[in-house]
Amino acid sequence: MARPDLNPALAFLRVPTPAAWFERAREQIPTLLMDHANCEKKAASTALSMTYRYVQHPPLLHKMSQLAREEMRHFEMVLELMEAEGIVYEQLSSARYAQALHQHIRKQEPYRLIDTLLVGAIVEARSCERFVGLIEVLPERIAHLYRTLVHSEARHFGEYLALARNIAAAHDLDEEVDRRVDDLLDEEATLVTTPDATFRFHSGAPD
Amino acid sequence: MARPDLNPALAFLRVPTPAAWFERAREQIPTLLMDHANCEKKAASTALSMTYRYVQHPPLLHKMSQLAREEMRHFEMVLELMEAEGIVYEQLSSARYAQALHQHIRKQEPYRLIDTLLVGAIVEARSCERFVGLIEVLPERIAHLYRTLVHSEARHFGEYLALARNIAAAHDLDEEVDRRVDDLLDEEATLVTTPDATFRFHSGAPD
Repeated sequence: MARPDLNPALAFLRVPTPAAWFERAREQIPTLLMDHANCEKKAASTALSMTYRYVQHPPLLHKMSQLAREEMRHFEMVLELMEAEGIVYEQLSSARYAQALHQHIRKQEPYRLIDTLLVGAIVEARSCERFVGLIEVLPERIAHLYRTLVHSEARHFGEYLALARNIAAAHDLDEEVDRRVDDLLDEEATLVTTPDATFRFHSGAPD
Repeated sequence: MARPDLNPALAFLRVPTPAAWFERAREQIPTLLMDHANCEKKAASTALSMTYRYVQHPPLLHKMSQLAREEMRHFEMVLELMEAEGIVYEQLSSARYAQALHQHIRKQEPYRLIDTLLVGAIVEARSCERFVGLIEVLPERIAHLYRTLVHSEARHFGEYLALARNIAAAHDLDEEVDRRVDDLLDEEATLVTTPDATFRFHSGAPD
């Protein structure tokens, strides 16, 4: 299988992650890895929850089930690295990021499904961008994990965005989805660039 | 990998599934498969939820993550068979079975974890027993799915039971866990043998 191109995911976002976030990541590797493990679980949970709600969409069911399996495999890879590093896994509070984005998901279908998929695309694109930066700044024994995973994030981004566009097209909502992407990316840019007291995988600018 | 022996799972249960349940299964293949698909999702959700709660148990995290991946792969296999059969996936209400068993899970740790694992073992053992019976009564185009999956259910049963016993032993609760198994199996036998108005994968005696 050809490796997915990283550029579409990176070009999708409005703003780069602040340099200070990468400095903080180097100083807080245990927190980075624990929260990364949590993010993989949450990505799997989100995909799994869609297999309950959207039983009438077989292609979506297959894709979300495969995605959930892949995210759980990544969770196991993060766990293995934490164990190799002697990091004891503790319960961590969540970043404001995912919750703030999910608050923008509209309640009514098909908007709810389209928005959920768009938020998925945005989170995967941001993860991809942070993985690329982390490969540059982290010691090789940690960086190799991000080198292994970065192309998956780019592929997941493309898959979420294509699903959102296909479902929007089926409802004659092509232009609507473009406007929605703009609004969600503006919100995401704010979350990434404004000060954030808590360092997490998707946190904003370190205080 | 050697195929797991089915006998420990089958010998674990108090009572066989009533013959009338298998007759109903032959008559209601679409409902059987839809509810089976739902059961695979729920098994994955239960395993995934344990990876949130028990971050301090790395071996449990790995096992539950692998189990969640395997259940989702089985979900995809049931979906494929439904599609081949032209079955349209509809939302179905749940059987009383899993909810009734989960109500017996104690709230306090480590009992909560032990009980959750024991309920997992019981559900897998019953699934294994029903798969064995379904292989005998269903047309081959459906039965082959159950022949493919039956050894996985037997292995999951053994894994859940071993995890429960290991955690109980670490808390000097070996005898406690034996009593708990007895109580839960009595409850399970009641659920399987008493009349149940709704036919589902884990339903009781057909009305």
